[in-house]
Amino acid sequence: MTHANHPVILTGDRTTGPLHLGHYIGSLRARVQLQHEARQFLLLADTQALTDNVGRHQKVTENVVEVALDYLAVGIDPAKSTIVIQSQVPELAELSQYLLNLVTVARLERNPTIKEEIRLRGFERDIPAGFLTYPVSQAADITAFKATHVPVGDDQLPMIEQTNELVRRFNNTVDRPVLVECEALLSPVTRLPGIDGKAKMSKSLGNAISLGATPDEITKAVNSMYTDPNHLRVSDPGRVEGNVVFAFLDAFEPDTQKVDELKARYRQGGLGDSVVKRVLNERLQSLIEPIRARRRELENDRAEVLAILRHGTMRAREVAGATLSEVKRALGLTYFQS
Amino acid sequence: MTHANHPVILTGDRTTGPLHLGHYIGSLRARVQLQHEARQFLLLADTQALTDNVGRHQKVTENVVEVALDYLAVGIDPAKSTIVIQSQVPELAELSQYLLNLVTVARLERNPTIKEEIRLRGFERDIPAGFLTYPVSQAADITAFKATHVPVGDDQLPMIEQTNELVRRFNNTVDRPVLVECEALLSPVTRLPGIDGKAKMSKSLGNAISLGATPDEITKAVNSMYTDPNHLRVSDPGRVEGNVVFAFLDAFEPDTQKVDELKARYRQGGLGDSVVKRVLNERLQSLIEPIRARRRELENDRAEVLAILRHGTMRAREVAGATLSEVKRALGLTYFQS
Repeated sequence: MTHANHPVILTGDRTTGPLHLGHYIGSLRARVQLQHEARQFLLLADTQALTDNVGRHQKVTENVVEVALDYLAVGIDPAKSTIVIQSQVPELAELSQYLLNLVTVARLERNPTIKEEIRLRGFERDIPAGFLTYPVSQAADITAFKATHVPVGDDQLPMIEQTNELVRRFNNTVDRPVLVECEALLSPVTRLPGIDGKAKMSKSLGNAISLGATPDEITKAVNSMYTDPNHLRVSDPGRVEGNVVFAFLDAFEPDTQKVDELKARYRQGGLGDSVVKRVLNERLQSLIEPIRARRRELENDRAEVLAILRHGTMRAREVAGATLSEVKRALGLTYFQS
Repeated sequence: MTHANHPVILTGDRTTGPLHLGHYIGSLRARVQLQHEARQFLLLADTQALTDNVGRHQKVTENVVEVALDYLAVGIDPAKSTIVIQSQVPELAELSQYLLNLVTVARLERNPTIKEEIRLRGFERDIPAGFLTYPVSQAADITAFKATHVPVGDDQLPMIEQTNELVRRFNNTVDRPVLVECEALLSPVTRLPGIDGKAKMSKSLGNAISLGATPDEITKAVNSMYTDPNHLRVSDPGRVEGNVVFAFLDAFEPDTQKVDELKARYRQGGLGDSVVKRVLNERLQSLIEPIRARRRELENDRAEVLAILRHGTMRAREVAGATLSEVKRALGLTYFQS
């Protein structure tokens, strides 16, 4: 992280399902590190998830605790990271409302991330207003905590640009530096494929390995992984590119020399899928075992988890509330203060 | 009011300037009556005014107390009506956020009221997102107080329809009747023209008579009123239609027989503008005199006015907060309650 003396990170997840190894590689692992270097707010983004889950609110709310369990199980330390339930911080909705006046509809429609998401969801002309405007809510989330850094994939850079535009527009409007611009913290790791070889691991595609997976589930998933469809006999040369087992070894096996050797032998011919899968299975078992154990432990102490969430949310309300007060003071919306 | 046993009215004004005789005729006079028949919430709509007043926030916030002074001066009784500062009820922003998911961008763009307002303001493609979505905020205002009746002009009927669509959509989504549909309370009085003969009285057009106008200001305004440009000599027949002095007499002179007589004599010829203006001037002086006096009195007791606003706003927060709690409970957004 480059600029800030006191870096503040804002990140989080839509609460639409428990997290999986794709999240672990894409964000969770980094967050466990980052919590030692920065003040970190982790948003359980139920309000945002509702923008495109009308009628599925139960799924959204039920998964709030699931995602929190995943956070805690992978090593997010509530003493270092603040875990926040988005819907329980009304200050975010309020800030969002003020920012909404500072961006045009045309600008929101030009946002490439939104364009892509609209395409993916098949909304076309029937875009819920809350979905079109969620980059503004996201800007409210980021600026409410005065985040200096936001971990994103490069597909989300337009969101950061949108946020900083709103920051500049607001500060210009009130003629003082109330809100803070943020920087993207680009993830160095590429996206983990699904076990079926599809580009993205996703619970809804049924190609994910969850962080609470049982030993059997892990073995079954690894054994069903997409490899090289032309690698029919052990003696045949095999392809490593597009081979999910090797993509996973690249992601999860810290011993890169070992991975390189396996790749060389696989390419040459003479190394069977079952051997490579066994290596990966052992690696994933030992990665997930402590996560699963800690998750089970926490599942049985739901009151403790809720206490953590309550504490984090309260702390978040203080921080967001302070920012909102500055915003309202700058706009003159302070009638009852002397 | 037809349906409700316990009618609740939600109405209010954007706080962009002190109110004038157009407001008195169009809404204030009715509100003074309605407060005896219904529970009435009067919204000082600063947040809504901000949606198309970016950079002019000072004008918006400074006029909150001005509009409140007008309310109290014309006879709004804070013991009967609840006067509320919109921006100080964060529950409205929160409810608005949930309703935003239940309407499409295309539907908002089709709203005739919004279309017309966009045209009037010359926004074209540069519509602020907050402006496009303000019918949703308006629906939040109405439903937060479970208003059964909303006084509107017929140009605002689409707003009521939009609100009721959101109510039905929300109740269907959560499968229980949380929000309440409202009815339009159509204003029987037509719009008061400006003193220059333009269709609408408006402070920004400089053709208004404010509720705090001095005797001299009133006389000056009446004397400069647009009458019949072809009524050059007293003996000429004059036109009553489009004649502002007669429009005002229709609105403010309760003695309709007297007005009819004046109209007949004016049409016939032989009645000078100055005579009719004198009649109107007397009428307006006696209407405004007690309002101005009460307004001056309250201006000198700003603490009392603020106390009224604080009390009304707190009461409004209780009501809106109760509705919001129901909304969040219905969506399952209640993690910390047992």
